[in-house]
Amino acid sequence: KINSDRLWDSLMDMAKIGPGVAGGNNRQTLTDEDAKGRALFQSWCEAAGCTMGLDTMGNMFARREGTDPDALPVYMGSHLDTQPTGGKYDGVLGVLGGLEVVRTLNDLGIKTKHPIVVTNWTNEEGTRFAPAMLASGVFAGKHTQDWAYAREDADGKTFGDELKRIGWVGDEQVGARKMHAMFELHIEQGPILEVENKDIGVVTHGQGLWWLQCTVTGKDAHTGSTPMNMRVNAGLGMARMTEAAHQIAMAHQPHAVGAVGHCDVYPNSRNVIPGKVVFTVDFRSPDLEKLTSMRAQYEVKAKEIADELGLGLEIEPVGHFDPVTFDEGCVSAVRSAAERLGYSHTDIVSGAGHDACWINDLAPTAMIMCPCVGGLSHNEAEDISKDWAAAGTDVMLHAVLETAEI
Amino acid sequence: KINSDRLWDSLMDMAKIGPGVAGGNNRQTLTDEDAKGRALFQSWCEAAGCTMGLDTMGNMFARREGTDPDALPVYMGSHLDTQPTGGKYDGVLGVLGGLEVVRTLNDLGIKTKHPIVVTNWTNEEGTRFAPAMLASGVFAGKHTQDWAYAREDADGKTFGDELKRIGWVGDEQVGARKMHAMFELHIEQGPILEVENKDIGVVTHGQGLWWLQCTVTGKDAHTGSTPMNMRVNAGLGMARMTEAAHQIAMAHQPHAVGAVGHCDVYPNSRNVIPGKVVFTVDFRSPDLEKLTSMRAQYEVKAKEIADELGLGLEIEPVGHFDPVTFDEGCVSAVRSAAERLGYSHTDIVSGAGHDACWINDLAPTAMIMCPCVGGLSHNEAEDISKDWAAAGTDVMLHAVLETAEI
Ligand SMILES: NC(=O)NCCC(=O)O
Ligand SMILES: NC(=O)NCCC(=O)O
Repeated sequence: KINSDRLWDSLMDMAKIGPGVAGGNNRQTLTDEDAKGRALFQSWCEAAGCTMGLDTMGNMFARREGTDPDALPVYMGSHLDTQPTGGKYDGVLGVLGGLEVVRTLNDLGIKTKHPIVVTNWTNEEGTRFAPAMLASGVFAGKHTQDWAYAREDADGKTFGDELKRIGWVGDEQVGARKMHAMFELHIEQGPILEVENKDIGVVTHGQGLWWLQCTVTGKDAHTGSTPMNMRVNAGLGMARMTEAAHQIAMAHQPHAVGAVGHCDVYPNSRNVIPGKVVFTVDFRSPDLEKLTSMRAQYEVKAKEIADELGLGLEIEPVGHFDPVTFDEGCVSAVRSAAERLGYSHTDIVSGAGHDACWINDLAPTAMIMCPCVGGLSHNEAEDISKDWAAAGTDVMLHAVLETAEI
Repeated sequence: KINSDRLWDSLMDMAKIGPGVAGGNNRQTLTDEDAKGRALFQSWCEAAGCTMGLDTMGNMFARREGTDPDALPVYMGSHLDTQPTGGKYDGVLGVLGGLEVVRTLNDLGIKTKHPIVVTNWTNEEGTRFAPAMLASGVFAGKHTQDWAYAREDADGKTFGDELKRIGWVGDEQVGARKMHAMFELHIEQGPILEVENKDIGVVTHGQGLWWLQCTVTGKDAHTGSTPMNMRVNAGLGMARMTEAAHQIAMAHQPHAVGAVGHCDVYPNSRNVIPGKVVFTVDFRSPDLEKLTSMRAQYEVKAKEIADELGLGLEIEPVGHFDPVTFDEGCVSAVRSAAERLGYSHTDIVSGAGHDACWINDLAPTAMIMCPCVGGLSHNEAEDISKDWAAAGTDVMLHAVLETAEI
């Protein structure tokens, strides 16, 4: 079993970097705080005897050698970046849980045949630079590096420039590594495990996603002196499209969700009818048919709304992945580890996207989930118990040991 | 008649300060650009032989002496601040038109019994610091100066600090001045004069207004892993309340308008269900009963929407004025000046709020409107013709001459 106090202390130490305003974290990707978090993680990995690799997307790879020089490594990892008002565990648990597995193997003097690598993937959250899971996506060949480097944040700064600015561009070509397998431990970010009173979620599938960035153009005009029938109100269009996204998700129940989380109104003045609104619809489902249908219905409905109001409309997909089925072998390694260790468990579908969803295309992959209080995530109040963190990390230790062979 | 080339050149020179991104202006109140615009206006006034007064709200008063030392001055004026994506004429025409009247009187060697004062009122637009017409409102005793000084912009900077920072706090106590009368020339900002092919709008009334700032609170949560029935989506609440404001205005037709121009979503991340949205509804009508009814209906409907979605809701009025009836004597001075000069004219209701609406409570006041292309304002493409500007200024010259007596 892993050392749960040590794991918890590391989680709390990392949370000191980029504190939020309400007890959580704001350690967004490629900020100075991200750089500090990376440096702390590197120092811990080196203290645990690992060597650090860094690729051209800023992905970090802490390697513990194996006994067979020809064997491919077993990977563990997730991400250290957070939402602007994020929690202390989303992503972080998967990285520091991986480090805790290495520390435990060191404590016990266990050597594995396959090397073990703990990874921190760059820009998983996708808030500052869309899409989410950007660097693991480039690693998996889903996007080109040039395209990723050109992604812009709200201030027009590019991913490439910001990665350079914080000093974390590596020499290693992204995606050059081969993997024997990969495991990602993550908090559930949903309510199921807590409600069902389970220690462990054995993740068999992941939801697919469409992020549709909508640019609605109307005409800036005076809110007082422009008669109602002369308005071309982009804000009203956004309101109706936001409602439409909700209604379409409701019409695809169960196993489908939809919402607008991001919305910028221009010029955003109390007495100007909005001339432009840019917002992003997030649709998800584990069922490819539903996912495709939600997108299609939304595009038709949004166009109808725009036409009715005389608005311009452009819809640009800024994030997408298909529903994922994780590797049977890795999934059963997780399930039997939970069984062996006496943890209650259930099979579960990941509601969120994860780096593991991309890596699953390259190598046998699975995920381990632990509950989080009230299912709450992407919120500074996100919370887990020390026991939940320990149980998830124990299961990862055993699944990795089985896969990396002693 | 006034010198229309000189007026136009001054308008174009002022428009060089704080250029926008699309041919208009971004010279928001109490910015460095505002300070530059003020300095230019002051230099022009001094060159025209006026002395400049400045009050504690930053209101500027350029005075041309009269022949009777006991006579109260006749005022002209409007504002030099603009919207973030504003035009070159909204407000500016009223200030520089006033200056052009003084320059014309100088050219013709005309002395008036009453002194004449050209005014630039601070923060008419109300975008950076709500409410609109803030400094004329303090002048008219509608707000206290302390309250005005404490108004905050989106960055939390206060009106008082910013006025000091740009160096335009005067010695003169705000509101200490007494007025014989006041005239404000302004572009219509609506379509009526152009559609009816009139040179001059004789403004008899002004619409009343409510600005209702709504803070909707839900719960930040993950867009992917939070089931639809567990969401407390402040963004969806905002969408429904935006639609409600529109529907309520439509149900009060004719002579009523309503829209949401300002809307901030928090944390504004694609994969976070909004935990908070702050937006402002703008309702207006020249009919006090309709204005009151729109506000009341909106408050009931917004509460219903919030309750249905489990959202918190606070509604704070951040701007208000009742419908205005301008002074009969001043209005007829405007009407007869237009008549005498042979300009086509019609009586009109101002759709927008203006400094004159507050001053009307203190002294006999009227407004002169000239058309603007397509009725467009609060848009960088706002446009007027040189002839329209000249006609409006001619009418102001003659109305002022009648009121200030030769
Ligand atoms: N785990 C997580 O929140 N990832 C961000 C991508 C997503 O929105 O699912
Ligand atoms: N004239 C003008 O646009 N004033 C700003 C106040 C308002 O919104 O009516």
